[in-house]
Amino acid sequence: MIQMTLIQIDNYGPWTVTPRPRTESDLQILQAELFADVQRLIAAKKGLVFFTRFDNMLAITNGLDAEDHMRIQRSIKNRYPITISMGVGAAETAHDAQRLATEALQREGGAQSSERKEILAIDSLVDPEDSFVQVAHIDINSVTETLTDIESAFDTSFMVNRAQHYLMTKLREHKALLFFIGGDNFMSPCNGLSEEEIQDILIEIDEEIGIGLKAGIGRSPNAEDSAYMADIGLEIIRDGNNEKWIEVVDKL
Amino acid sequence: MIQMTLIQIDNYGPWTVTPRPRTESDLQILQAELFADVQRLIAAKKGLVFFTRFDNMLAITNGLDAEDHMRIQRSIKNRYPITISMGVGAAETAHDAQRLATEALQREGGAQSSERKEILAIDSLVDPEDSFVQVAHIDINSVTETLTDIESAFDTSFMVNRAQHYLMTKLREHKALLFFIGGDNFMSPCNGLSEEEIQDILIEIDEEIGIGLKAGIGRSPNAEDSAYMADIGLEIIRDGNNEKWIEVVDKL
Amino acid sequence: MIQMTLIQIDNYGPWTVTPRPRTESDLQILQAELFADVQRLIAAKKGLVFFTRFDNMLAITNGLDAEDHMRIQRSIKNRYPITISMGVGAAETAHDAQRLATEALQREGGAQSSERKEILAIDSLVDPEDSFVQVAHIDINSVTETLTDIESAFDTSFMVNRAQHYLMTKLREHKALLFFIGGDNFMSPCNGLSEEEIQDILIEIDEEIGIGLKAGIGRSPNAEDSAYMADIGLEIIRDGNNEKWIEVVDKL
Amino acid sequence: MIQMTLIQIDNYGPWTVTPRPRTESDLQILQAELFADVQRLIAAKKGLVFFTRFDNMLAITNGLDAEDHMRIQRSIKNRYPITISMGVGAAETAHDAQRLATEALQREGGAQSSERKEILAIDSLVDPEDSFVQVAHIDINSVTETLTDIESAFDTSFMVNRAQHYLMTKLREHKALLFFIGGDNFMSPCNGLSEEEIQDILIEIDEEIGIGLKAGIGRSPNAEDSAYMADIGLEIIRDGNNEKWIEVVDKL
Repeated sequence: MIQMTLIQIDNYGPWTVTPRPRTESDLQILQAELFADVQRLIAAKKGLVFFTRFDNMLAITNGLDAEDHMRIQRSIKNRYPITISMGVGAAETAHDAQRLATEALQREGGAQSSERKEILAIDSLVDPEDSFVQVAHIDINSVTETLTDIESAFDTSFMVNRAQHYLMTKLREHKALLFFIGGDNFMSPCNGLSEEEIQDILIEIDEEIGIGLKAGIGRSPNAEDSAYMADIGLEIIRDGNNEKWIEVVDKL
Repeated sequence: MIQMTLIQIDNYGPWTVTPRPRTESDLQILQAELFADVQRLIAAKKGLVFFTRFDNMLAITNGLDAEDHMRIQRSIKNRYPITISMGVGAAETAHDAQRLATEALQREGGAQSSERKEILAIDSLVDPEDSFVQVAHIDINSVTETLTDIESAFDTSFMVNRAQHYLMTKLREHKALLFFIGGDNFMSPCNGLSEEEIQDILIEIDEEIGIGLKAGIGRSPNAEDSAYMADIGLEIIRDGNNEKWIEVVDKL
Repeated sequence: MIQMTLIQIDNYGPWTVTPRPRTESDLQILQAELFADVQRLIAAKKGLVFFTRFDNMLAITNGLDAEDHMRIQRSIKNRYPITISMGVGAAETAHDAQRLATEALQREGGAQSSERKEILAIDSLVDPEDSFVQVAHIDINSVTETLTDIESAFDTSFMVNRAQHYLMTKLREHKALLFFIGGDNFMSPCNGLSEEEIQDILIEIDEEIGIGLKAGIGRSPNAEDSAYMADIGLEIIRDGNNEKWIEVVDKL
Repeated sequence: MIQMTLIQIDNYGPWTVTPRPRTESDLQILQAELFADVQRLIAAKKGLVFFTRFDNMLAITNGLDAEDHMRIQRSIKNRYPITISMGVGAAETAHDAQRLATEALQREGGAQSSERKEILAIDSLVDPEDSFVQVAHIDINSVTETLTDIESAFDTSFMVNRAQHYLMTKLREHKALLFFIGGDNFMSPCNGLSEEEIQDILIEIDEEIGIGLKAGIGRSPNAEDSAYMADIGLEIIRDGNNEKWIEVVDKL
């Protein structure tokens, strides 16, 4: 089972414009620093956070219990002008896990409620013996040669976003998630998806929009090790001149 | 005229997997911190950076000269395990400006060339008297009520990404850019676009995918002030119950 | 027993002037960020770091094992232009613990050796059942009224440094350490010191230089809880109008 | 003339214990990050900040005007749970400048007044044509060989603190300041001090406590360039095997 946490800034929208709109660069710095900090705190326990919408972040948190979550909320409250609420859910698929996490938090009040503050709403946690995380690290074949070094920077980012949107659309139909993690890289928490299903999605995208993708797939009891195994999978594909679409690596 | 800078991490891809893949959480922290730091340094001169692909960032840099750019490169080199190269371009539209910036840098070598390092490639700079930045701050009407508080966190981010992809596609055809800036917010450097063109794009997206958007449009000689004017425009629309699609605010 | 870790930047001095002196503000930011980051990583396991000399930091690390230390080294290497080596020691007193930690690292090579890099030299670790940390949180009575609000900022910092130097001198004779932690606050890892010994030191300093101090003393199996108990001790003294010199609070 | 700014966290002491004592590691991270951030913002204009007491920082701010100061206050307010007030003073000596800065701020209310918030109290600013900064960068001769590599880490830091206290005491008598900047390094804003006076202080300390010091002295219109010139001075002394006590370098 995979455990996911939704991290939501409390009442953020109204705060950004009270008493008047805050300087955009400050908000960008605040959001990036908050993401980096939550990442550090969750990574200390081998979890992994995705920036998602920055004011709403999703994280794989297998291995983190209630106290671990509360310590993160406390540390953020002590160092930021805002506070965070969290929902936690565990399920067989990543989409179900984040849905349970979201619903648990939604039951405590709205994201822009001025009453709801620093809530920790736990729907379910993964037992250590059931802990299992499958992630696919997906990137674009030869992006530097085919895009970065010849297209304009914005047009390259447009193509990357296009790949992202197609990946999100198709993976979501299989109850998997998809996050952009920078460069030409995406990460998909995809418990329950077979290798064939992942490969088929990559082939479909190549046929539909002509963007060649490959995926290293890692499996272990936690996000950190699975992400590392997925990276090893990507390296194996690169060593074989990108002839394979996917490569699965299990942590023994 | 608008001036744009491409900030590119030198030879980043190979570095992330040498001698073996680096811990993903560390890379995520590194990228977010780098973005936050470059933002601080560029914002000190009233510019504004968009995280774009993190290893490739685009910035509006009206008001920053060659020395300002070099100081940023030096500060990053002194504090990070990586270095950055930059290209700078000025043009009547944001897309042309970033294209000139990209081409200037591409002429100095590839993004994964181990020889190209800390290049500052300036195609053109905006003269103070010609400096003009138009940005649209676009957000989704009632996103908290219609998405955040009722859909799962991932499904909301999927809808936001969908809006982003449609906005990118349409704005790019008009030589404007579009960046996600967190939450349900997008910012479009859009020098040269008329109010009608922007409104038409928002109407089209509402008709095509049923996502209601609004845009505050700000104009001034620099990115900071234009972004602030755009925020004021959004506030005016909100005060009118989102009945208007757009609102333009010029800095006097 | 108390466990202490010495965190030392490898070959830092030469790096700061190669190929020419690096901008001082960048070095100050680098050092402060490194301290903040190491603090986050060690605090995730309830340890506590003191900035000490910044290029050499001392930390109370009861509860952190070899893998915890290695993860910190890896994360720093992945995000900074420098690397860190560490020595770890455990003993009945804090001074002995840091001495053992230092000696373990010194045996591996000099701080400015270009060969010694990312060493983890463990002399000894504290067993969980023997883990015990006593810290005194010491501050100056009424510093705002008697110094901050009437003296110049530098003269106040001079008086604080004077108190620090006297505290360091006297506590060191009792095998306790003393670190400045900002404001008018000091923290002393002081396993083995009796309440009377601490009180006598505060009385002596009052008599010798006329600076009134008080100390909350906390005891628990780890640095985080002991520091919190010490804070509670200080609050109790304040509630009694600073009539007591010390207050001990044990974590039950 | 030298311009100095006092940066003071508003009502910080009470905040750190309300509603109960905040986690010490969080406060240490907050203080270090705040220092690093203020440093970035002031360094963008070639100023230099010293961490001093962290809740009270002193900075050389030649070249920064009222708007520059206000922008720093705004950025901190937008990203931290605390706000800062500032006092600014200009004078022939650094001690007088910081005294004027402190007095200007003290007149606006106490550091722990709950009413005084985000004050910018400017006593005086330096005119560009009168701008002059003299700083001495002082370090300990052969600290690695004589202390770091043979003494325990705490005992080395004790010796460094001892040097600091003697330097502070003597320089203050000459209206110069002295700040610890990490390692075995100190920086003294010392407008008005002659080379002979500085050399005499170093000789006295060597005779009194047996710690050999050297000083590079830099002069220019701003802190950044003067600090760099001082570094060049230190390098020249090192190249001469530390035979000279001081070396002055003027920016042409």
